[in-house]
Amino acid sequence: MALFVHKYGGTSMGSVERIKNVARRIAKWHAAGHKIVVVPSAMSGETNRLLGLAREISPFPDVREMDMLASTGEQASSALLAIALQKEGVSARSYAGWQVPVNTDSSYTKARIVSIEGTKVQDDLAQGKVVVITGFQGVDPEGNITTLGRGGSDTSAVAVAAALKAQECLIYTDVDGVYTTDPRVVPEARRLSQISFEEMLEMASLGSKVLQIRSVEFAGKYSVPTRVLSSLTDPLISLEIEMSSGTLINFEEDGKMESAVVSGIAFSRDEAKITVLSVPDTPGIAHSILGPVADANIEVDMILQNQSVSGTTDFSFTVNRNDFKHTVDVLRNQVIPAVKAKDLAVDEKVAKVSIVGVGMRSHVGIASLMFKTLAQEGINIKMISTSEIKTSVIIDDKYMELAVRALHKAFDLDK
Amino acid sequence: MALFVHKYGGTSMGSVERIKNVARRIAKWHAAGHKIVVVPSAMSGETNRLLGLAREISPFPDVREMDMLASTGEQASSALLAIALQKEGVSARSYAGWQVPVNTDSSYTKARIVSIEGTKVQDDLAQGKVVVITGFQGVDPEGNITTLGRGGSDTSAVAVAAALKAQECLIYTDVDGVYTTDPRVVPEARRLSQISFEEMLEMASLGSKVLQIRSVEFAGKYSVPTRVLSSLTDPLISLEIEMSSGTLINFEEDGKMESAVVSGIAFSRDEAKITVLSVPDTPGIAHSILGPVADANIEVDMILQNQSVSGTTDFSFTVNRNDFKHTVDVLRNQVIPAVKAKDLAVDEKVAKVSIVGVGMRSHVGIASLMFKTLAQEGINIKMISTSEIKTSVIIDDKYMELAVRALHKAFDLDK
Repeated sequence: MALFVHKYGGTSMGSVERIKNVARRIAKWHAAGHKIVVVPSAMSGETNRLLGLAREISPFPDVREMDMLASTGEQASSALLAIALQKEGVSARSYAGWQVPVNTDSSYTKARIVSIEGTKVQDDLAQGKVVVITGFQGVDPEGNITTLGRGGSDTSAVAVAAALKAQECLIYTDVDGVYTTDPRVVPEARRLSQISFEEMLEMASLGSKVLQIRSVEFAGKYSVPTRVLSSLTDPLISLEIEMSSGTLINFEEDGKMESAVVSGIAFSRDEAKITVLSVPDTPGIAHSILGPVADANIEVDMILQNQSVSGTTDFSFTVNRNDFKHTVDVLRNQVIPAVKAKDLAVDEKVAKVSIVGVGMRSHVGIASLMFKTLAQEGINIKMISTSEIKTSVIIDDKYMELAVRALHKAFDLDK
Repeated sequence: MALFVHKYGGTSMGSVERIKNVARRIAKWHAAGHKIVVVPSAMSGETNRLLGLAREISPFPDVREMDMLASTGEQASSALLAIALQKEGVSARSYAGWQVPVNTDSSYTKARIVSIEGTKVQDDLAQGKVVVITGFQGVDPEGNITTLGRGGSDTSAVAVAAALKAQECLIYTDVDGVYTTDPRVVPEARRLSQISFEEMLEMASLGSKVLQIRSVEFAGKYSVPTRVLSSLTDPLISLEIEMSSGTLINFEEDGKMESAVVSGIAFSRDEAKITVLSVPDTPGIAHSILGPVADANIEVDMILQNQSVSGTTDFSFTVNRNDFKHTVDVLRNQVIPAVKAKDLAVDEKVAKVSIVGVGMRSHVGIASLMFKTLAQEGINIKMISTSEIKTSVIIDDKYMELAVRALHKAFDLDK
């Protein structure tokens, strides 16, 4: 008999029928004697509907008011879930973020959780109640409603699990776990029964959409065992089977990790590469180029600067493709005249492919095998970036699927 | 330069375009230097949509959770209105009931306001902000969200106006004031520029849908000058014209009341009459009959008991037509056997027509004129009920429009 936190995404909460199924699933856990806290997202489409209304009124709506508005979606779905649980004969109670309270800073639309007060929730659990806590939202020190940003319900769930010292945080979603790569690209992709926290962090930051990166960071910071599993199974499947399904994110240093050197292949097509040509190779040049870009609120991903022999160098970096035009404007108007660069070379259609695995720490030649595999397929590498447990390359986006499939095979991920 | 509370109903907030119009209207008041607090309802249809979802899940959903759910409608519309005001260049801030706070008791779905803390609102007003406060909701002593019941936004607005000592509470709605009777029945019906508080109370309780009765009680208790006016006028009409439009509910005993003896005619078709035949005329018989009816949560309106000469009497009362079948069941199963009554006589299709006016206090013969008028039209009166400022009759519902038109003319209301 232990405490579990369940998180259900918008699709899982997307209709009255689905909410009833969520309630049936939770009733099963509750009947087995477990204490359950549930963190639901808004019903799918609801948040977009609300934000759409605001944008019809004003192209740049005030962020405080946007949070007032958006937070209603989770409040409604939480109340509906509590009602559905009661219908299943389970005593249940819903709380909005401010009622728990889930304390955050005041960064509207992207607030960070500071603390969660668990007393009220523990009292309810002790009385045998299931507690439903609105995901995605909290309250700042002045009593304003805040939201955690898109995907924030994952973070809410992990933070609640940390505060209540839950045995496990279960993230129910429309996929049944974390895969070696996207099965839509590589049909042979395999579900991982476990993945290390660091690998999950790299996978999330590299574009795998299974978990929001901040929720993974939170899980890591507080060592919350977190499982990603499917909400589409029969809600009444055996609890034993359900408890070992999906993918568990593991925090034990010496955990029973899978033996593969590379655990997964992540990729992202939304990349654009920009090179500033012939800039003086002087100290501070990176800041001169990227400072104005950061000031324009554009996030830069990979950065490449070669030492020069001639006194000038080329400076390359990648940005999200949506930011491409804005970045080029900033560079042409502010940077090129200031640093006396010659021109820009741009490559709007590139993709990033990454191999991820904690085994890369202890094994040599992993990156080489990646480069060799791509070479054999005739794929030119435009940029390389490495960390302790991942290697990323930028390639022409038309080769992306080919690269992912070839690497998946080369690293035996289909076995 | 004074403080005004504006209330906008669901229809006035029913679309993005209408919310923009509300913002334009408020911006006009704000530009004239007035302090404005706005209490909006949920967008029309939204509350029904939410409650419909809950009822799809459970026929008898928990009332605490229903309030969590229903309160989201006003929170969303308040945030949208604040955004629309900012778009108009007006600094604005929305607050949910718990943020003000609007303190209520714990009677979920029909809570009563206990107090309103005005400090935060006054601070914002002093800074030149328009403050938007969610209607219809509050927070109980344990921090649970409560709602005030249908039409509760009117009550919220009046309570806020009382707490802030507003000069006037303006209830913007889809009619342009209180009429001598419903213009759909009597085309000659006139808008009253003023009506006394007590008359308004009778009109509201007799079925005039312009204002919710509890909001009128609240306005009376705290002597809040309250004006009912149209939200459908051009939002940019002159402030002077707008400030004297609609109908003002007046609390001054010696106020400049209109001189008419009868101010209005109210009516309701949703009535049913039930007579329990030949019950023993003993003390406590009314309780023996109506106790079980009250226990079944059925509201009884008019009650008629004649003293008997024979030792038995007939006992008549009216209920809302929706409660008719349920009432008959209660009577047949519980009351008739217990009180040894002979049988029931029922009349499912009756209507109530009432004349209302403070002038009835000082004028005799008003009721007589009513009875004479109905007699001249050949309308049989089935029950009569009187109070200090109103006289109501129950008649066949097919004569209702005829009765209303005849009375409207007889009391010179079209002049």
